[in-house]
Amino acid sequence: MPAEFEPHQGCIMIFPERADSWQYGAYAARKAFVQVAEVIARSEQVTVCASAGQYDNARAMMPPQIRVVEMESNDAWARDYAPTFVKRDNEIRGIDWGFNAWGGLVDGLYFPWDKDNAMARKLCDLLGKDVYDKRDFILEGGSIHVDGEGTCLVTETCLLSAGRNPTLTKEEIEETLRQYLGVSTIIWLPCGIYHDETNEHVDNICAFVKPGEVVLAWTEDQKDPQYAMSKSCLETLEQAVDAKGRKIKVHKLPLPKPVTMTAEECEGLDACHDEPTRTPGERLAASYVNFYIANKHVVMPGFGDPADEQAKEILQELFPEREVVQIYARDILIGGGNIHCITQQIPEC
Amino acid sequence: MPAEFEPHQGCIMIFPERADSWQYGAYAARKAFVQVAEVIARSEQVTVCASAGQYDNARAMMPPQIRVVEMESNDAWARDYAPTFVKRDNEIRGIDWGFNAWGGLVDGLYFPWDKDNAMARKLCDLLGKDVYDKRDFILEGGSIHVDGEGTCLVTETCLLSAGRNPTLTKEEIEETLRQYLGVSTIIWLPCGIYHDETNEHVDNICAFVKPGEVVLAWTEDQKDPQYAMSKSCLETLEQAVDAKGRKIKVHKLPLPKPVTMTAEECEGLDACHDEPTRTPGERLAASYVNFYIANKHVVMPGFGDPADEQAKEILQELFPEREVVQIYARDILIGGGNIHCITQQIPEC
Repeated sequence: MPAEFEPHQGCIMIFPERADSWQYGAYAARKAFVQVAEVIARSEQVTVCASAGQYDNARAMMPPQIRVVEMESNDAWARDYAPTFVKRDNEIRGIDWGFNAWGGLVDGLYFPWDKDNAMARKLCDLLGKDVYDKRDFILEGGSIHVDGEGTCLVTETCLLSAGRNPTLTKEEIEETLRQYLGVSTIIWLPCGIYHDETNEHVDNICAFVKPGEVVLAWTEDQKDPQYAMSKSCLETLEQAVDAKGRKIKVHKLPLPKPVTMTAEECEGLDACHDEPTRTPGERLAASYVNFYIANKHVVMPGFGDPADEQAKEILQELFPEREVVQIYARDILIGGGNIHCITQQIPEC
Repeated sequence: MPAEFEPHQGCIMIFPERADSWQYGAYAARKAFVQVAEVIARSEQVTVCASAGQYDNARAMMPPQIRVVEMESNDAWARDYAPTFVKRDNEIRGIDWGFNAWGGLVDGLYFPWDKDNAMARKLCDLLGKDVYDKRDFILEGGSIHVDGEGTCLVTETCLLSAGRNPTLTKEEIEETLRQYLGVSTIIWLPCGIYHDETNEHVDNICAFVKPGEVVLAWTEDQKDPQYAMSKSCLETLEQAVDAKGRKIKVHKLPLPKPVTMTAEECEGLDACHDEPTRTPGERLAASYVNFYIANKHVVMPGFGDPADEQAKEILQELFPEREVVQIYARDILIGGGNIHCITQQIPEC
């Protein structure tokens, strides 16, 4: 699996419409998605999937250089439904993992998830890519990060969760990752971002910026439950050796101050399975690590927080050849993820 | 507009499902569509559009070398909904004509037709082609045939019908064809095939096999109403001079004996707008002219008629460099058209 910072031939996104994910008819979220798509499209071909019902609206909102295709889904998390693309024999192929809405009947976030689970194969068909069928293994794209040189980052909370592959041992899960991603070393972070409802996907807390170097979401506030979580990840990373035998260089990326739902935002969400989707004061899993590395840009979230600028400066230093663009992403965050979660890169051959 | 016998980069089809078009749940029709797609796919990339609900089934029925994409429609006539592709400045672009189900509120065949009418633009988006917007002009792909050298064949019954562009004069319609198709000479056949509910599309009665040469559906049975119709077309063609100043050489292609609906077939069709779609004994517009010219094959209909073999031999002589493949097409014909109607070529650049 090529790293995200290697060249892309394109990017996949999904037009948001689910009324229990996106407040007030998804209008604010759509605007943010359009901004993300527009920045990525400056240096790679963006394909946006929209349901038949939202096709016209997606086409009208998206700039013309972005391709809109009809494809239904249960929600809008391209990172987790789209194939994981890998390279072999100079050909790009897609892995079709099983998807069960981040935990299936144990702690999944919605039911059903059949349309999401069908997307990887549909996308491979659309793009003319062959498919590796691994639907008997539950994995989301957001739960792995690779350096393109044989190292994979994951979190224990997610990959060992009871709702994914409970019959497999940690060793068997590692073996699947080795076989399908072509990696040799798996670094298990203990956890992710506090209150991250994906069972703490790695892509919200830690990401490779180049081989041997990662950013780690960080807070100095020792009273924040995130402090111990980030610290335990740091300790793991400090002990780790990557596939090439290197120690990992860790760049701390500050977290914004806790972002919580307002009562007004909660009122704009449909109930999910007869329960409120979000409650006022609920903390969201905001993190600047949830960025997308496009060919010529890094598209990162902003939260209207004093740390926005500092986080942007750090990333700009780490990506000197790309322009870092920050997009106000509260309306994506409310849905439960961020810019990395709503995008999936297609590597170049 | 390149002629159909010029090289193609691909072909568009639509998976049939409409219950008032395709008898008994469309199962027999789907098998015929699969056969057509399979033959075309031997020498060009076939893309089949399926609704979200039929996607899995279409994917399962279509051979793997055929691309299935999700795209809703009101029925399955790719010739008439897909863009007419034209070449300019070494680029292929699509014309998005208006579509109103072959006559709109005057004598259209179903209501609504909005999904069909949206397809040309969606397909251009999918294929990365620019669009000429001519939605203010009602035209179906099946109502035109070109020789690629400046000549266009049409029928008066169709292009001058009250349900299409009644406010335009014949000269204004000609001017639109000249401008959008890049033709200079339009040959107006008086009519098409008897009982052809498209107001007698030209593609069911007459088609170019090369510049200066056409096949014309023909019967020697003077008691058949088709006799006078084909004869009047022949007289027009004998008088005609094409864009290059040539006389038209006409090859008569025999018609099968009249094909009529059985009571059992009628019972397998939903009513359309509270009226029976077809009645027992109703004559269908069967014609061997309704073939598709693929890169290396000519895909033509058969009806289990003694003339099947003769028609195939004539076409094989006219297309010596292509293999003529005959597909039993009664189940396509019942829907109201034939192999040319369910396909649309994308020319090579």
